Amino acid sequence: MNIDMIRAAADRLKGHARRTPLLSSPFLDEIAGRRMLIKPECLQHTGSFKFRGGWSAVSAMDDATRKRGVIAYSSGNHAQGVALAATKHGAPSVIIMPNDAPQLKIDNTRALGAEVVFYDRPGGESREAIGDALQADRGLTMIKPYDNPYVIAGQGTTGLEIAEQAREMDVETGDVLICCGGGGLTSGIALALEADAPGLRARPVEPEGFDDVARSLISGDIETNNAQTGSLCDAIITPAPGELTFPIMSRLCGPGLVVSEDEALHAVALAFKRLKIVLEPGGAVSLAAALFHPDKIEGDAVIAVCTGGNVDSDVFALALDKHS
Amino acid sequence: MNIDMIRAAADRLKGHARRTPLLSSPFLDEIAGRRMLIKPECLQHTGSFKFRGGWSAVSAMDDATRKRGVIAYSSGNHAQGVALAATKHGAPSVIIMPNDAPQLKIDNTRALGAEVVFYDRPGGESREAIGDALQADRGLTMIKPYDNPYVIAGQGTTGLEIAEQAREMDVETGDVLICCGGGGLTSGIALALEADAPGLRARPVEPEGFDDVARSLISGDIETNNAQTGSLCDAIITPAPGELTFPIMSRLCGPGLVVSEDEALHAVALAFKRLKIVLEPGGAVSLAAALFHPDKIEGDAVIAVCTGGNVDSDVFALALDKHS
Repeated sequence: MNIDMIRAAADRLKGHARRTPLLSSPFLDEIAGRRMLIKPECLQHTGSFKFRGGWSAVSAMDDATRKRGVIAYSSGNHAQGVALAATKHGAPSVIIMPNDAPQLKIDNTRALGAEVVFYDRPGGESREAIGDALQADRGLTMIKPYDNPYVIAGQGTTGLEIAEQAREMDVETGDVLICCGGGGLTSGIALALEADAPGLRARPVEPEGFDDVARSLISGDIETNNAQTGSLCDAIITPAPGELTFPIMSRLCGPGLVVSEDEALHAVALAFKRLKIVLEPGGAVSLAAALFHPDKIEGDAVIAVCTGGNVDSDVFALALDKHS
Repeated sequence: MNIDMIRAAADRLKGHARRTPLLSSPFLDEIAGRRMLIKPECLQHTGSFKFRGGWSAVSAMDDATRKRGVIAYSSGNHAQGVALAATKHGAPSVIIMPNDAPQLKIDNTRALGAEVVFYDRPGGESREAIGDALQADRGLTMIKPYDNPYVIAGQGTTGLEIAEQAREMDVETGDVLICCGGGGLTSGIALALEADAPGLRARPVEPEGFDDVARSLISGDIETNNAQTGSLCDAIITPAPGELTFPIMSRLCGPGLVVSEDEALHAVALAFKRLKIVLEPGGAVSLAAALFHPDKIEGDAVIAVCTGGNVDSDVFALALDKHS
């Protein structure tokens, strides 16, 4: 992984991915006690930054490979990003989902052009077995959600934009807080900032109880979470940092930050009220860290990458109800 | 009013107002039956396009006049836009509000740096009398919400951006739907499109029962509404089109469109689900017209200007509850 791969991904994404703006609010500056800038990737195609990685991976394939199609395991944001990227390239996509996935996510993924194949999660069926068979039968290419160099490069284009936009707004130093699951976005942004904005430092943010990356950065080894479900921040619940992403984060990132689920919901409500954007709890932990843990952050300015907005209306209403 | 005033306003707004993106969703395209682009002015500073007009007016003053301060009548989006524009120029601002205005709007306007002066609306006190006295005493300059050339020019910068962004996305012809109160934004956009995108046609959209502009465009004279309250679309409830704005709209706009309040709420819910933006009902009537009245629209593509997102959480929850 290197910066040239991210710049090449940016060329491929140009005119296809959205260049999201940097938002701000004097009300949030006051809560945070410093200047805050927000990168709202909820406004990206399919409602999360995952479209960048999906497009980067699909667009990097040779024609014959792409024509056979791509495959991914996901019931969430990665599935939608890969599905739309493939469809826009005229390539087939297969998304493997558990048979107890929410109907809305199944419908959305199909509407974006993907074929959905189920595995019996409650019954203990292995998704890998089904995926391996499909790959072999049809010659599909697997696109992993974070341990894939083209995916990391695509997510890293977010960092190139942050470097340029922050400079335009006279922010040259400070922490860049990133909602972190497996680390594809965090490691990609860290590489982009190293090259284009060395005064900005990438830092992962996770929910309490799922702080595998924060702990891994402390120990220097890949640590895992005990639980793998049971958080409203489902979008960023992964078992451990990736084999490709962890060495990059270990070399470049500042210490990880951890927020409570209630702080994430509070950030969702404040983003509604002050920024007029829709965030899912897992896409708001960066904002929550900036707002509610200012003592753990360095510098006069902080940038929060808000990674996604694919939230059910009942969870959103809960956030507004608790924190309006 | 002419295009040169809008271009001059764009120069003054550069680096201060946000250049909002054009958003889209394949799900909305499908409902609308054509390609849809959305200009989300809810992402503008203070949560609505009104900041553009406020900044344009304040920035056009000479230093001595500006130093004495500005004044506006409003309890809504115009108040916040003027207050922040004045504060960022280091100028005092006075906002005249009814004494029964919601506490949140009072607090927000003060937090943006304005002095709030109340008039006794239930008691029948005249806001004009209070405003005239303040202007005379302190030498304040009144900034009207739409019948002011600098305000129209500022709002018109939205149209310059639409012309450029639509061309980049290969949209050269079609209707541009605009949530319309007094017509400052609609007339400004119409002038900008006439100059920079003559294939695009501005069309005002209003809620049922408050369709003064649509009726005025038909009759050729300024028509008024019977009611002046009683709509969830409060941001765009004005008694009649303006003296400055109506001749421009009459010359340049296509027929007005009218949507029901329930259609506006449905559009709020779909903007939440598919665009990840927060709209107030009055800022969503353009989107509602594009989605639910496709037979009244011409062309393969339609652009909806979604004008504001300053909505209370209970109204937003109502929209999600009715239409999720």
